[in-house]
Formats: sequence, C-alpha cells, structure tokens
Amino acid sequence: MKSAVSSLISSKNSAIPRTFLHHSSNPISPTTFLFSTIPRNTENLHNQRCQKLQIRPNPTKTSIMASASMSELAREPPALPLPTLPLTKFKIGLCQLSVTPDKERNIKHAKKAIEEAAQRGAQLVLLPEIWNSPYSNDSFPVYAEDIDAGGDASPSTAMLSEVASHLKITIVGGSIPERCGDKLYNTCCVFGSDGKLKAKHRKIHLFDIDIPGKITFMESKTLTAGETPTVVDTDVGRIGIGICYDIRFTELAMIYAARGAHLICYPGAFNMTTGPLHWELSQRASCSSTNALLAVTYAGLWIIRFFHRIVETRMRQSNAVLVEWPQRRLYVATCSPARDPGAGYVAWGHSTLVGPFGEVLATTEHEEDIIIAEIDYSILEQRRASLPFTKQRRGDLYKLVDMQRCNSH
Amino acid sequence: MKSAVSSLISSKNSAIPRTFLHHSSNPISPTTFLFSTIPRNTENLHNQRCQKLQIRPNPTKTSIMASASMSELAREPPALPLPTLPLTKFKIGLCQLSVTPDKERNIKHAKKAIEEAAQRGAQLVLLPEIWNSPYSNDSFPVYAEDIDAGGDASPSTAMLSEVASHLKITIVGGSIPERCGDKLYNTCCVFGSDGKLKAKHRKIHLFDIDIPGKITFMESKTLTAGETPTVVDTDVGRIGIGICYDIRFTELAMIYAARGAHLICYPGAFNMTTGPLHWELSQRASCSSTNALLAVTYAGLWIIRFFHRIVETRMRQSNAVLVEWPQRRLYVATCSPARDPGAGYVAWGHSTLVGPFGEVLATTEHEEDIIIAEIDYSILEQRRASLPFTKQRRGDLYKLVDMQRCNSH
Repeated sequence: MKSAVSSLISSKNSAIPRTFLHHSSNPISPTTFLFSTIPRNTENLHNQRCQKLQIRPNPTKTSIMASASMSELAREPPALPLPTLPLTKFKIGLCQLSVTPDKERNIKHAKKAIEEAAQRGAQLVLLPEIWNSPYSNDSFPVYAEDIDAGGDASPSTAMLSEVASHLKITIVGGSIPERCGDKLYNTCCVFGSDGKLKAKHRKIHLFDIDIPGKITFMESKTLTAGETPTVVDTDVGRIGIGICYDIRFTELAMIYAARGAHLICYPGAFNMTTGPLHWELSQRASCSSTNALLAVTYAGLWIIRFFHRIVETRMRQSNAVLVEWPQRRLYVATCSPARDPGAGYVAWGHSTLVGPFGEVLATTEHEEDIIIAEIDYSILEQRRASLPFTKQRRGDLYKLVDMQRCNSH
Repeated sequence: MKSAVSSLISSKNSAIPRTFLHHSSNPISPTTFLFSTIPRNTENLHNQRCQKLQIRPNPTKTSIMASASMSELAREPPALPLPTLPLTKFKIGLCQLSVTPDKERNIKHAKKAIEEAAQRGAQLVLLPEIWNSPYSNDSFPVYAEDIDAGGDASPSTAMLSEVASHLKITIVGGSIPERCGDKLYNTCCVFGSDGKLKAKHRKIHLFDIDIPGKITFMESKTLTAGETPTVVDTDVGRIGIGICYDIRFTELAMIYAARGAHLICYPGAFNMTTGPLHWELSQRASCSSTNALLAVTYAGLWIIRFFHRIVETRMRQSNAVLVEWPQRRLYVATCSPARDPGAGYVAWGHSTLVGPFGEVLATTEHEEDIIIAEIDYSILEQRRASLPFTKQRRGDLYKLVDMQRCNSH
C-alpha cells in the first residue's frame, strides 16, 4: 500500500502524471497533459494568443486564501461598484402584449398598455421582443423602421418617446425590426422619462440553428447581429439589455454585473416551434404552460434542453433559466408576447421578474397581461455587502475580460 | 414626436448619451459613460491592466453573425474538444458515508462502501468531503495526513490506493485534511484503476464568512487554499475536481469545460449551521430535507441564498445549484456525508448525479446511502454536436481566460 501512493510521489520515473501534483513539488504545470492532446495548429494558435495577452504572473505564488487583489483580477477591467441612485424602490411593469399583423393596432395597443402600467404605478415599463410585427423572417423587412431617422420613419419608437415623456417614465421598449442602411437588426430602444432615446441595443446573439432532418431556423437570414453590449443609466437604475437568445450567454450577464448593472431586461419572443420538436415535447411530458415558462423560450433544441431541465428536474412553478442569475446578484426582468395559437410563431408568455436570489417575484400565464411588481435595490446592496462571493474569486486562476471596455482605452 | 427621437440622433449637441448609439454612427465607445463613473485610481489601474493584456482589436468590425473564429476567441486558450475514450457508458457510485470521530472506523467503513459500490457495478466511486474526520477546524490538524509521504503517514489514501487497485476502479476520494510542511489543505485524491495517485486537488476557494452579529466561519483559520484547478484523465473520462465551496465559482467549471472535461466531481460537506441562520431558515418555511438538497451546502449566508432560490421558487425535488451546470454540458456528481444530528456540523446529504441538461439523474435523502447511476458520455457528444451554443459565443465582446494554461507557455 505504501508503495502505491508514496512511490508515485518520490520516484522521478513514476508512471503517474506528476503534472497533476501540487505546484510546490512539481515544476511542470498541472495542465501540461492537456496540451499534449491539442492538435499542433491549435497549440500554435494558443501560444500566439497567450503571448499577445501577456498574462501576468500570479500575484502571489504562496498558497494563501484569495486576497482582495486576487479577486479583483478576476474581472478585466475591475468590476465597478453599483452606482448610487436617488431612488431604491420602484415599480416595474411588464407588458405581455398580444401582437397582430396590424402594425398600427400594435402601436396603439402597446401605448394603451404602457399607459395602464404607468397608471398602476410603474416607473419602468418593459415591452416584449418584436411587439410591432409578427415574429418571422418574412415580416422583419416589411415591418422594419429606420429608428435613427425617427418620426414617420419610425412610428413605433416615436410613440415610445412620446409616451415616456408624457408619463415621465422609463421605457425599455422591447424590440422591433430596425432598418439601418441595407441591414436589419432586432433592436431594443430605451427611452428616458424625458422621452429621449438613451440606448439602442441590437440583439448580439442571433438564433441560428440547423439540425439536418430536425429543425432549421436562421435569424441571420434577414437579421444582422449587434456589435455591442448595452448598459444604460436611467432614472430607475443601471440597466443591461439583452434580447431573447442573448440570455443564454452567461458571459454577457457577467459583463453587465461587472459594469455595475442593477437590473437586466430581456425582451424575448418565447416561442414553440411546430413539427418534430413540438411532438417530442408533447411526448416527453404532459407539459403544462406553467411548467414551460421559458422552457420554450428559444425555438429548436433549446426547447428540448429546457424541457429536460425543467420537466426532468420537476420544477413545477419556477423558471429554470433564471435561477442562473442569482450569481450576478441583480434583478432580471423578461417580457414575452402573449400567446396567439393562430400565429405562425406561438409565444408562451410567462413574462417574469426575478430577484437577486433567483426567486420569482412576479410572473404570469400565457394570456395578455400586465405585471406590476416592486423592485428594491437596497436588497442588492445588502446582499453584495454581506455575501463575500465576489471578493473570493481567484483572479490568479481565471479572468473574464470585457473586450469593449478594454478596447475603449 | 419626431424631434424626440430623430433630433437626438442627428444633433451633435444633443443631451442624450450618444455613447450608447450604434458603433457605425458613433465614434465614441458605448461604454464611455461607465468610465466616467470610475474613481480616478481605479481607472488608472484599469488602463494599465488593459494595456498589459494588449487586447486585440475585434476580428471583424462589420456587423456579422458571430463567426467560428469569433466564438473561439471567447476562451483563452481556445476550448479543447472532448477527448475520445475507450468507453462511453459506465456506472458511478456516490458513497454518502456516515462519518464519526473514529478515524480507523471511518477508513474501514469507507472501504466497505467502495467495495459494495464496485460490487454493484461502479467503475468510478466518489466519496464525500472530509470523510475520515469530523468537519471542524479543531479536527483538521488532528486528523490531517501527509499524503505525499503515504503509507502509515496517510492511512486514508493508502486504503484508497489499495482498494482502487484491487477492484480495478477509479476513485475520486472525496477529501481529507492534508498536512504538507506546516500547512493544512482540504484535499481530494484521485486514484486510477491501477491504484496509482493520478491527481491531488486542494480546495481552491476556502469558505470564509464573517457577518458581524450573524455568523463567523473561517476555514482559513486552519486551512490553506489550493493553487490550481485540477483536471485529470482517467479510465472513465476527463474529470474536473472541485470541493464544496469551489462549486460556487462558475468560472472554475467554465475552465474545466474548456479543458474538455466530461464530468466534474464535487465532494461537499453540505451542512447547516446553528444559531440565527438556522432560525431564519426555519422561519422562512417548513423546509423539508427534500427541499433543501444543496440549499444548505454552504454554511452561513449561502444557506439563506439557496433557501431563497429553492423555496421561493418552489422547486420541490430539484437541485437549484446544479441547474447552473447544463451550460457546461457535462456531467456533475456531488457527494456529501450522511446526516448525523449529533455531530457539531450537521450534514444534509442528498448526494446527486446531474446530467448534461441539468436533469437530476440520481439522488438520495440524508441517510447513509450508496447511489449507483449510469453515465453515458455519448449524450455529451450528441448535445455538443447538435447545440451550436459554443460556436455562437462572441469572443470579440467577452473572453474567459484560463490563467494557468496561459502561464504554462
């Protein structure tokens, strides 16, 4: 028995991979073995890239608990503190709107919903993804608006601007198809309580899926992906914006958290595709709409994925997607169109507000609805102060780089 | 209405933060506003660090869908493919052991459990965190073993080596207190089916919490934090190792996934502390052990955190912690000691195997138990092939750096 363990450690000719042993007793990097499995060209690429990154040596080589400086290195540039605000408590309104092929009706309808939300106390109103147009590649070019030109060229955002100014509220205006030159985007506009456009987020991660024989869905057929993450300072806090599929890329939320966001808003056209996947869903469980929640947020295989996550883990009234967010310790709001069984793209609804622990603070079913719920940022401050998590990261071992913030200097 | 939107865009003197507008129409970085909120000294630090990183310009400045090369840049070095294995399907055994102050009994008891798991078909056996000693700062120095010396200096690992060799199985040996010079570590040893020590993981993120007037728990009082992530190639796949609190740091799992891990094993002494927090827990709901699962994995405020996440979202039979893992699309196994109400540290049990969709494949209650469950890596291959997620990352916008792999070259 002794030889089996100790000889491995002591003998230089031992067959065990000494590369795994602890640093102090091992001059070879513990990850050396991994590179032996990398194809030559990949290894070269890796070498070049790491050289370019000029990764600094560990700040401490002694085995100590993660220090404050170590944890700070885990975000590049360093994470920003939460900005202080004149208000900490306010109401958000999530307008789960029905959407029709009649654009004029959609605009009037959205305006009415925003007015109702404001009347019920909402200081921030969130609309769904693509609320002025049917959600389809065929419709995007037809319904697209030139947001930069504004006015008659963009009646949807003109309405948002007017109503924000009139009601003195902040509006995260879901998204609409945007035309800019010869390109189309899936774009979310944020209007301040003075009616001014404060930010424009173009969906960064387009939903492209192509599983031969199963499903093909290509947003990129008509849309172009946005180029920048969007964080905007408003009267109701620093808000990060993502659109639907953007939610799947944790790094984006981590970046928003590191930029000091209080809240991330995700307009999403949460849908269910027809055909084999629909069938597979029905096969695998008697999936109530309550179960589904965001399960069918993303068409295609995401459906299967969330279906597994939600149904197989038997989460009956929760939102599996959103329990990922507490790590960010911020609020997350999602807003979907209402379900219209007659539409080409059937939305699932279930717009939701999630708190900093991943708790569902307010949600709804699939029908048209306006959710009014309270956000209290003082809880964020408490949690961030009391939970030492962010101070215990190991920046000597891993680092998340916000490329845009780095590039901007 | 027109002026409210369009004038913002056209006028150079507009009061709106043009910094948010899209790149093509805006020479100012969309994140400029953020830096205006950074204190001067932080900004300087940021500048220095970004210069050191020498972040390359975006590979494409045109608005296009994330290309393969863009997504590859999201991991530094690039993510490795899953290594191919001689086997894809095998059984794992999770030994949820009772632990007593009698070390000799604990060793014999663990040996018996491993033998039973192997007899029931397990080719990989996972033990709990600190299975040879009570879990307390007082006990660690007393029960610690010199693993590098082996033999009589480390009877616990000597047993693991012997039984792995005898049964021809792989053992992820939970963890034991390790003495190395004048330092103590919380250490997990992995033994190959030849009985040889293949890897040694020292808990990277120590659980230190100090909330004045609420709870103070300082693992770092006695323990030293490990310095390296651990990924090890075994007969049953490439396995990443984390111990308890390590699970909270998503970056570690992301690194393991990028290193091509099939499975992450987390031994964890999932506990419930007494005092105000215990009380708070009891206050907030009639928390059944089934609800709790890993809710009380981490003493102190983690309890509250998971409590919120689990109880308030009413996930009755699932493991809130683990639904975070599907993004990694690998298997996750956790192993806890059995609950002993008489112990100073009451373990909650509920060792669990979670599949690549976050589905709970096998779990147990708080009593002593051996879970035998099947792992099928061919599912990983299918999912990774069919879900384009990793190919759609935006390496031009964010990047996760594996510092150790970069430093090793």
